[in-house]
Amino acid sequence: MVLAATSPLTRKLSAFAVLSEAELAVLAGLHGRRRCFAAGRDMAHQGQADQAAYILSSGWVCSYKLQPDGTRQIVDFQVPGDFLGLRSVLLRTSDHGFEPIVDIEAAEVLTGDLLEVFAQTPRLAMAILWAASRDEAMVVEHLVGIGRRDAGARMAHFLLELGARLALVGLGSREGYDCPLTQYHLADALGLSAVHVNRVLRQLRENGLVTFREGHVTLHDYRGLVAFAGFDPAYLDQTGPLLT
Amino acid sequence: MVLAATSPLTRKLSAFAVLSEAELAVLAGLHGRRRCFAAGRDMAHQGQADQAAYILSSGWVCSYKLQPDGTRQIVDFQVPGDFLGLRSVLLRTSDHGFEPIVDIEAAEVLTGDLLEVFAQTPRLAMAILWAASRDEAMVVEHLVGIGRRDAGARMAHFLLELGARLALVGLGSREGYDCPLTQYHLADALGLSAVHVNRVLRQLRENGLVTFREGHVTLHDYRGLVAFAGFDPAYLDQTGPLLT
Repeated sequence: MVLAATSPLTRKLSAFAVLSEAELAVLAGLHGRRRCFAAGRDMAHQGQADQAAYILSSGWVCSYKLQPDGTRQIVDFQVPGDFLGLRSVLLRTSDHGFEPIVDIEAAEVLTGDLLEVFAQTPRLAMAILWAASRDEAMVVEHLVGIGRRDAGARMAHFLLELGARLALVGLGSREGYDCPLTQYHLADALGLSAVHVNRVLRQLRENGLVTFREGHVTLHDYRGLVAFAGFDPAYLDQTGPLLT
Repeated sequence: MVLAATSPLTRKLSAFAVLSEAELAVLAGLHGRRRCFAAGRDMAHQGQADQAAYILSSGWVCSYKLQPDGTRQIVDFQVPGDFLGLRSVLLRTSDHGFEPIVDIEAAEVLTGDLLEVFAQTPRLAMAILWAASRDEAMVVEHLVGIGRRDAGARMAHFLLELGARLALVGLGSREGYDCPLTQYHLADALGLSAVHVNRVLRQLRENGLVTFREGHVTLHDYRGLVAFAGFDPAYLDQTGPLLT
């Protein structure tokens, strides 16, 4: 029970539903098959079939799509408490690849495990659907970012989103958070060149809003950054449980 | 039972799971509160709380996000069998607006209805999670399209995706489909100007690939268009039921 009470996924889902002891136990059961993966080595590649999904318990992962011309679009980053490849296990063929950014620990989840959880507790099924919906809302924001936001607002919005997600699982605050991403990751996620990323980060720092240096993001002026980015965190739905 | 057997949502979910009579009956029950909405009038606006989700049974809808500067990014179009605002009902505050493109008919679904369905049949819960995952996979493709594909490939990919989705619910084929979208819809979805959309469509027509005219998309050369777009439909997962 200690595991369930403190796992990042439990913390995250508790933002949607107040979970009973029985539900917490079912959730703990999903964390049974723990595995470690090394940084930089693909866990799944695009087009792969019959793969497992994972619940990330520590570390960072990026999910990406390769284009025929070899360019890479990073779709999202996963942080502790996030599912990896939930879509892949449901859609049979993985529509994306994912790769650990640092060494990670994750629990393997198969379709049968999910079906069993759903049969045992419909509220947990709703909570997992909530998490999937929230993931989709983030991808939508990234789409809007690339389609409609200038580079500065796009970067600011992205850093605020990461901060809010990490805060939900106890890994960040309005002051800042640890972040292992390189400028190449940021470039591939935001549709910018690494040089452009560098310039945008310098401007944000010089304007006293945020500093990203040596693996740490420092939010100097949270409100100023929110205004600059036009960041409305409602899509992250972190205001407290809906199902009580 | 006739309703359940023939509703577009039933056709769609049957691509994921072979549904029993009992499951079909539960799905039919979700279609109880039918409502009509007029073209061009918002069904939900961004930031609205406490709204319902809907299952679209006839007509087309677009979901979009407005930016602070008033520009609109269309995130996706919904066709019969799709959920409208499933994310909104789970995430409490709608992160997007949606607007019927033509007069539509849709069945209202509340959080309580979903919980009841989930409690009655975990397989249907999995199927709905599958549909949500597929929606997310489409948004991911749109993100990649805007981030990494040139205007021609982006348009071709988009028209092929729509065709595949419509074919799944019996509303299209590899020869073509009816489509009520205007060039303004296409522009707002693909991040292009209406003039640019016009030019791209003309080029695709002149190359003998596809004609979009008077509310109908004609696919002259399906394979050629697939090659031109780099279209791999695996992310739509329409190859037959996984859960049997």
